[in-house]
Amino acid sequence: MSVPKTQKAAVRKNDGTIAVEEIAVPEPGPDQILVKINYSGLCGSDKSLLKDEWQFKMTEATHGIAGHEGAGEVVSVGSNVNDLWKVGDRAGIKWIASVCRKCEFCVNGQDECHCPKQLNSGFTIAGTFQEYAVTDAHYATRLPDGVKDEEAGPLMCGGVTAYVACKRSAVRPGGWVVIPGAGGGLGHLGIQYARSMGMRVIAVDGGDAKRDLCLKLGAEKYIDFSSTQNIPEEVMKITTYGAHGVIVFAATRAAYDQAPALLRPGGTVVCVGLPKDASVVAGAPPVMMCMKRLNVVGSVVGTLQDVKETLDLTARGLVHPILTHGGLDDIGKFCDELDQGKLAGRAVIKVAA
Amino acid sequence: MSVPKTQKAAVRKNDGTIAVEEIAVPEPGPDQILVKINYSGLCGSDKSLLKDEWQFKMTEATHGIAGHEGAGEVVSVGSNVNDLWKVGDRAGIKWIASVCRKCEFCVNGQDECHCPKQLNSGFTIAGTFQEYAVTDAHYATRLPDGVKDEEAGPLMCGGVTAYVACKRSAVRPGGWVVIPGAGGGLGHLGIQYARSMGMRVIAVDGGDAKRDLCLKLGAEKYIDFSSTQNIPEEVMKITTYGAHGVIVFAATRAAYDQAPALLRPGGTVVCVGLPKDASVVAGAPPVMMCMKRLNVVGSVVGTLQDVKETLDLTARGLVHPILTHGGLDDIGKFCDELDQGKLAGRAVIKVAA
Amino acid sequence: MSVPKTQKAAVRKNDGTIAVEEIAVPEPGPDQILVKINYSGLCGSDKSLLKDEWQFKMTEATHGIAGHEGAGEVVSVGSNVNDLWKVGDRAGIKWIASVCRKCEFCVNGQDECHCPKQLNSGFTIAGTFQEYAVTDAHYATRLPDGVKDEEAGPLMCGGVTAYVACKRSAVRPGGWVVIPGAGGGLGHLGIQYARSMGMRVIAVDGGDAKRDLCLKLGAEKYIDFSSTQNIPEEVMKITTYGAHGVIVFAATRAAYDQAPALLRPGGTVVCVGLPKDASVVAGAPPVMMCMKRLNVVGSVVGTLQDVKETLDLTARGLVHPILTHGGLDDIGKFCDELDQGKLAGRAVIKVAA
Amino acid sequence: MSVPKTQKAAVRKNDGTIAVEEIAVPEPGPDQILVKINYSGLCGSDKSLLKDEWQFKMTEATHGIAGHEGAGEVVSVGSNVNDLWKVGDRAGIKWIASVCRKCEFCVNGQDECHCPKQLNSGFTIAGTFQEYAVTDAHYATRLPDGVKDEEAGPLMCGGVTAYVACKRSAVRPGGWVVIPGAGGGLGHLGIQYARSMGMRVIAVDGGDAKRDLCLKLGAEKYIDFSSTQNIPEEVMKITTYGAHGVIVFAATRAAYDQAPALLRPGGTVVCVGLPKDASVVAGAPPVMMCMKRLNVVGSVVGTLQDVKETLDLTARGLVHPILTHGGLDDIGKFCDELDQGKLAGRAVIKVAA
Repeated sequence: MSVPKTQKAAVRKNDGTIAVEEIAVPEPGPDQILVKINYSGLCGSDKSLLKDEWQFKMTEATHGIAGHEGAGEVVSVGSNVNDLWKVGDRAGIKWIASVCRKCEFCVNGQDECHCPKQLNSGFTIAGTFQEYAVTDAHYATRLPDGVKDEEAGPLMCGGVTAYVACKRSAVRPGGWVVIPGAGGGLGHLGIQYARSMGMRVIAVDGGDAKRDLCLKLGAEKYIDFSSTQNIPEEVMKITTYGAHGVIVFAATRAAYDQAPALLRPGGTVVCVGLPKDASVVAGAPPVMMCMKRLNVVGSVVGTLQDVKETLDLTARGLVHPILTHGGLDDIGKFCDELDQGKLAGRAVIKVAA
Repeated sequence: MSVPKTQKAAVRKNDGTIAVEEIAVPEPGPDQILVKINYSGLCGSDKSLLKDEWQFKMTEATHGIAGHEGAGEVVSVGSNVNDLWKVGDRAGIKWIASVCRKCEFCVNGQDECHCPKQLNSGFTIAGTFQEYAVTDAHYATRLPDGVKDEEAGPLMCGGVTAYVACKRSAVRPGGWVVIPGAGGGLGHLGIQYARSMGMRVIAVDGGDAKRDLCLKLGAEKYIDFSSTQNIPEEVMKITTYGAHGVIVFAATRAAYDQAPALLRPGGTVVCVGLPKDASVVAGAPPVMMCMKRLNVVGSVVGTLQDVKETLDLTARGLVHPILTHGGLDDIGKFCDELDQGKLAGRAVIKVAA
Repeated sequence: MSVPKTQKAAVRKNDGTIAVEEIAVPEPGPDQILVKINYSGLCGSDKSLLKDEWQFKMTEATHGIAGHEGAGEVVSVGSNVNDLWKVGDRAGIKWIASVCRKCEFCVNGQDECHCPKQLNSGFTIAGTFQEYAVTDAHYATRLPDGVKDEEAGPLMCGGVTAYVACKRSAVRPGGWVVIPGAGGGLGHLGIQYARSMGMRVIAVDGGDAKRDLCLKLGAEKYIDFSSTQNIPEEVMKITTYGAHGVIVFAATRAAYDQAPALLRPGGTVVCVGLPKDASVVAGAPPVMMCMKRLNVVGSVVGTLQDVKETLDLTARGLVHPILTHGGLDDIGKFCDELDQGKLAGRAVIKVAA
Repeated sequence: MSVPKTQKAAVRKNDGTIAVEEIAVPEPGPDQILVKINYSGLCGSDKSLLKDEWQFKMTEATHGIAGHEGAGEVVSVGSNVNDLWKVGDRAGIKWIASVCRKCEFCVNGQDECHCPKQLNSGFTIAGTFQEYAVTDAHYATRLPDGVKDEEAGPLMCGGVTAYVACKRSAVRPGGWVVIPGAGGGLGHLGIQYARSMGMRVIAVDGGDAKRDLCLKLGAEKYIDFSSTQNIPEEVMKITTYGAHGVIVFAATRAAYDQAPALLRPGGTVVCVGLPKDASVVAGAPPVMMCMKRLNVVGSVVGTLQDVKETLDLTARGLVHPILTHGGLDDIGKFCDELDQGKLAGRAVIKVAA
């Protein structure tokens, strides 16, 4: 496969604008592969980094290239890669680009996502908003048949995040889970993953279009927050004693404040959404935590195995992301739409021609 | 066994004082037993109820009699009790005096502590600060050989609470648990229970007397908060990445605020202490919850099975409460000392002569 | 509700025949309820007891009345039952008729099925092949709306047995489970329960009618043992490394012998079927157990909570038993058909007129 | 560090004898390290391979060099090893020498021990009965301070095997575990690991010397099989309903046959020992499996994380192997003593001078 010398990339400039530029195609290091990025999802974190909303900033090593939901094809491999990957294999690039494989968290086989030496695509190394991206051969993800690149991209972060959040809820088959923001980018995936695990879903969102979407995706009940006075009361009517879990995909204070009141004794709040306002606290007063024996747990992306399971569900036809398509030129516009809550489902960028 | 017509009881009067009075000995209902209370522990909750510190108040049905850590002997049984109990059996009375055995929480076999129809000793029915108390035959606890009444009493609530909190931490053998307030009434039991499960204990408390006590009871490390600038830093020095669990027995804002910072990724905060200040929130900002994948969980007393396991550890000689002895006349004084943090270990009242 | 003095019952005579006779209607003891049996399922264990195939025999206390899958209506209650049940409530009667509620297994809230003092319907007390049966008020099961008596009956033992076996397999959503005998009385329920938990089912049975049934009920693959040379090879083709679980509903040596070979490392064999031949051993040579780190586990009926969950799935419309209807006169005939493997789905007896 | 060209190794000759020979020191491949073996434990599997007792045989690639419990020091590193290891680091070599890190079992982070492409020290590549051994840089184990090489060696296989078997038993703190062969090479470690997890140990072995050893190591009860008529009865006397777990370290038919009878309902048999006789089956008749809801599970070595935890317990002073020392010349003799059951504790070979 012939690899060009230069490529197109969407580059964040110092003034905060994004320009599509012609830059050099990188070469893979000894333990890296070079992936032609056919599609890349656009995550809310990309937007936050590109708009400089966080205390964390994209490092110089990224050369201003964000993106961490890449899907495409291996076009060259480093000298140590050996039989791990060969040219032509389909590969996915994730938020976690590489881990050290030496620390306690890597070695214990379940906590690699907490490796303190991890590199992150589009944050500490150049991301997937470029036609050719290098990534660690050991941490890239093999894409299975039956999952198209345009779907695989958004699953690399959005999909696995929603999937793992459902697992973290520990709601058993037949139990009730409330999903605030169920009609959104993560929420609409969350409904599908929860269903695939046998949970019963109460979707919370606003408006009739969202109602139709949520019910179509498998939610059993829909609560329209724009017309419901007392959401906890509604949840109690449906569930008698409260839900078994609440997955807070919404990045709002209100969602975190209300979540514990929706639960039955022994229930679990899963934290996913990250509000801009640093004073928001996930949790509840100790008397409520204790008397209801609640659990409040955080969730963030997932392990290699989680990503594999996430892809598997789409390959089996059980879970499909709803996509809004665009090109590298559309990244800025999509970021604005994300801010305004206007973007339907997940934005996916056609990167390589 | 002859049962007298009248008995002594410590009765809360409307003016908030406590008087030892001669009252009638109650008769057991068909499904109840009458227990001669040899000893009753004095719990922080008794103090809060007697001093009217909570929004919840002792009901009239208590006749002003608090106490829920009773240990003694069955002296008569109701008409339906049949072979469940016989006169002379040793019995313990707990915070939960009875449950409905019909609701979802009773039937599922693990959540009886959340039965919405439960009765509570010294809160919704008369408690154990009387020489003879009636209690539900199905929910009283059989006391094993090898546990004296004076120890069994405080184990009925303080012991099982500390024991279950250790279980709720889900810290595995060899993992680190931080116990703030380790030298206190619950904390000194928590050290022992954590040790019995193979955990490594970092005790946090103030002063050298507490240091000696904590180390004697099995703590591996002691952090004196009165002389330590940066407790999280100390915990990191000992544990490299942070502790696996923190059990907050202390009922203070500071303890709840600091707990998440003591944990490694994947770690767990167990909420036990109930601060008077209703604005305290157990939890952490979502970004911290997610990035460290933390768990914050509530714990409250325990099931019949938990109480059995709690007693078993004392019967085996592995866990012993440190006791301060007194009589019914001393309850008021002990409540004041609890408030002042002056009481060593757990107060236990010699009730029946 | 008026209760007659006499009733019809199917009675096992000393010569092994079954006669429908007019006998006295029993009166409930203080802690019992009297249930008008509208329908009773006919379980393989009833057949084994009625045909005296086991070393265990029906006790005299049964008066020759078998049956432990009863569903009907409460018609009178004992003097201590109080608000636990009222006349007109719908109730189910199970294999376990009562437990002691005092022993370690009852108290720990999860193992009541192992209470050494349990009474068993149709084995140690009279069963449900009579129009009016008494049973323990504390252990009878409340029937939910949305489950008809004719379905509720077979769920009391067959349903919960299949449901709990699926739980015992510990196969996670997305994992593969093999069900030998998938077209049978328990197997056809097992397919549905496994599906409701998100498992992928490989049904094993013989013939095209069974194929159609299994695929209709949700099996993803069907292996016809009557035309398949090498079943393990087929399972490997489908699953690459082997299945995550095998649930042995079939009561045959062949099914037990083959099960371990169908599993991937870490997989689980669940034992349910009880072969007549006492020399059959469930398990595998230690070298296979260790090298593949297998699990072989036994499963038997389920707890009150399990029965509740079982009924809930039918109330939700997710699981339906396939029924063959008959009356008290048909019990003998159905037992013969069970022996010959001729009975489709589960036999259910219309008991009370 | 200067590495010699030749070294001493214990080599299995075609006639089955073992000769100490001077052979070339191997050079590490790009992803390997060369470890100077200070000590190597001698495992029962080494004996079985050297004596050709199994259907599996040492491959030619081993050059006749067995051993898989090596401990020593890194003396050179391959070209890709980078900062993973540096010369002078202390390293341990295990039964599993390398895994593919690509398959489902490697990727899921918990089942690497089932990687179908694993290499095994002393079985498919040359082992640790040589002064300098090469091993995979990614799978070698870092040795912590506080664990001497002579102890670390035997922990690499014997230690982790006993430790993981205790974990597999799932016996909770306070539960009873029976260890047949408790005074042997694995058993004496098993007692210590079980104790460190809070279990109560019933040791089974023969004679008073074993009794003293087992009680000294922490067993609470000792059953001398040489003088006990009915072991299950003894276990019932101690435990009332049976033990929670039995760990079968003994490689005998009798141990496997008896294990299920020692358990209470819900209990677990852990298979570890591998009898020569291929007709031995671990398990029980289905009726026993089901009625007692037993678990029979296999266990084999452990993951990188398990090895880390195993070493940690010795570093903390809680677990110490009992050692019989020797040199490369003693391997044959030790194998004979193993066969005769004469070897006390674990044999450890001083390899490099």
